[in-house]
Amino acid sequence: MQTPEFYAVVPAGGAGTRLWPLSRGAAPKFLHDLTGTGRTLIQGTWDRLVPLAGEERVMVVTGRVHAPAVAEQLPQLPATRIVTEPSPRESMAAIGLAAAIIARENPDAIMGSFAADHRIADEESFHAAIRSAIAVAQQGHLVTIGITPTWAATGFGYIRAAEPLTVNGAPGAVRVGEFVEKPDSETAEQYVASGQYHWNAGMFVCSVRVLLRHLNDHASTLHDGLMRIAEAWGTDKQDEVMDQVWPGLVRIAIDHAIAEPVAAAGGVAMVPGDFGWDDVGDWKSLAGLLPDADDAPDGMQVLGDANQVLTKGATGLVVPTAGRMVAVLGLDDVVVVDTPDAVLVTSRDRAQEVKGLVGTLKENGRTDLT
Amino acid sequence: MQTPEFYAVVPAGGAGTRLWPLSRGAAPKFLHDLTGTGRTLIQGTWDRLVPLAGEERVMVVTGRVHAPAVAEQLPQLPATRIVTEPSPRESMAAIGLAAAIIARENPDAIMGSFAADHRIADEESFHAAIRSAIAVAQQGHLVTIGITPTWAATGFGYIRAAEPLTVNGAPGAVRVGEFVEKPDSETAEQYVASGQYHWNAGMFVCSVRVLLRHLNDHASTLHDGLMRIAEAWGTDKQDEVMDQVWPGLVRIAIDHAIAEPVAAAGGVAMVPGDFGWDDVGDWKSLAGLLPDADDAPDGMQVLGDANQVLTKGATGLVVPTAGRMVAVLGLDDVVVVDTPDAVLVTSRDRAQEVKGLVGTLKENGRTDLT
Repeated sequence: MQTPEFYAVVPAGGAGTRLWPLSRGAAPKFLHDLTGTGRTLIQGTWDRLVPLAGEERVMVVTGRVHAPAVAEQLPQLPATRIVTEPSPRESMAAIGLAAAIIARENPDAIMGSFAADHRIADEESFHAAIRSAIAVAQQGHLVTIGITPTWAATGFGYIRAAEPLTVNGAPGAVRVGEFVEKPDSETAEQYVASGQYHWNAGMFVCSVRVLLRHLNDHASTLHDGLMRIAEAWGTDKQDEVMDQVWPGLVRIAIDHAIAEPVAAAGGVAMVPGDFGWDDVGDWKSLAGLLPDADDAPDGMQVLGDANQVLTKGATGLVVPTAGRMVAVLGLDDVVVVDTPDAVLVTSRDRAQEVKGLVGTLKENGRTDLT
Repeated sequence: MQTPEFYAVVPAGGAGTRLWPLSRGAAPKFLHDLTGTGRTLIQGTWDRLVPLAGEERVMVVTGRVHAPAVAEQLPQLPATRIVTEPSPRESMAAIGLAAAIIARENPDAIMGSFAADHRIADEESFHAAIRSAIAVAQQGHLVTIGITPTWAATGFGYIRAAEPLTVNGAPGAVRVGEFVEKPDSETAEQYVASGQYHWNAGMFVCSVRVLLRHLNDHASTLHDGLMRIAEAWGTDKQDEVMDQVWPGLVRIAIDHAIAEPVAAAGGVAMVPGDFGWDDVGDWKSLAGLLPDADDAPDGMQVLGDANQVLTKGATGLVVPTAGRMVAVLGLDDVVVVDTPDAVLVTSRDRAQEVKGLVGTLKENGRTDLT
């Protein structure tokens, strides 16, 4: 099952504030079981990457404050495979540092980057897509996975496919025309109807050599800083150099730093994926991922212990995490999330606005809750 | 201000389950501040009865388990004025025992009985009505207060007025034609339109002599049992006799035991009252009693600390009592009641059904929450 020389990198950052009050700075989304499987999102990510990369070649890049929780949740992950960031520096620094460290270990390695907090339903299909992507990456492309859209989502960016590529082992591979931002509803409808657009799931597969070359071409200062850290990595100067260089690195997403300019130059390929992907972005999308609980009456979905929920004439989603009884009576499409220090009551349709509520809490000085 | 020989009796029983999860068996409605005044309902009751009866002639009849909380909330109430019931025996036993004890202290006393968990807005008007009722009671009537209805309520019983009575100091007094049960909407509309019907607020004023005579006429076994207890009251046999006699007493409401049969015989009078009365029966009626908080945005009412509530685009009622943040986003007419071991989410329109929810909890064996 394992693919030699393939490394899986998992940037684990971001608070996931639209899933407040469960997800928050001190305990972000990827540390929670949000799919009712008994595994947290980062554990689910690990579970589906190990068959591709083996336990020895998964690397997690996360904030220092979250490293202990990551180590606890992933006991098989070698300690040396947790790369801790002193402060958040966006995805290009995180992925670029992983590439630089891997390149010193194996200059011919292919790496893939996968968010820690997404959900994938069909792992076999996911593995097949990544194997295709690896074959395309071996041809020198920066490869992304384009998710076949199932509806006109406005919450994701899209990837426009250009001409097909001929690569053995990757029959569906195409060149990427361009990456486009989250569209409005009308544009999203057109994208989906055209058959030319796929969802951008933020997954990248590339040889470390090619990725670092692109980085050097488009952000050479960042490249040089990351190379300095990588050179010290694993030596007794590691922390000293990290603390010296990291704070000065530019904050930029991998999309803007290399994916978009390289796509414009024709250097990005896309492999289509159709494996039930979701970014578990807010309570509404999470509700769509959960099965209708057989034992929850009235079509009320429960993420957690159904014995802590009592409903009558109510539909929606209840997330009981505080050990208390949550009783919901006579409300449709309601979302109730109960935590030890905060309870959220909203509707599925307003779930996107939770982020704004968290902003208000911060403005009010209640950072203890965010 | 004080009226000599007037005793105020406060039966403090009933869990008020429609106000779950705040009100429950272990901490019933009357022990909570449900009007945002800083005083609990029984404290508010005490506050408005002391000007009529003085601190020495208020008597509270309550369950043994609640006696310590009553004593704590009413520090001015003499310990000998707390009559504790070993078990619930409905209102006739509670009020009859109070009458029997008072009669041994002062056979000429007039007593009034007032629920511990109602709300009255205009105390001066209440005092005037009770003084009128005392004047009528001195003529030998069993007197009730009929609340002038302000809308066609279906949640209260009604009192039909018959011919006027001529009593000095009680210009509005009438004879009661009959007590009627809670009506349907159509009947309630007719009652209010007729001008002949008043709400039954469960208040009775009567000389103890007359009340005990009615009790002897209509429930002589109960009368005799209560007299046995009253004879032992204040002696060293008090608890022994209480525990021996009380469990065998009939469970019956004062309405059915004496008010209805005495009314049928022409012996009940009514004094009208128009002092902003409410029985604070459920979360909907409670919401109607609270002022619109100036500092609560969007017309959201808060019973408790508004700093524990964050709302956006939401209306209704939030009751934060667990020290946690309650965030409500984009819901109209919602009711959220947060307690340390249970949270209720419902709508104002479904508030009446909370009682059924509590019944389900009991059936499920969750009596720890009820």
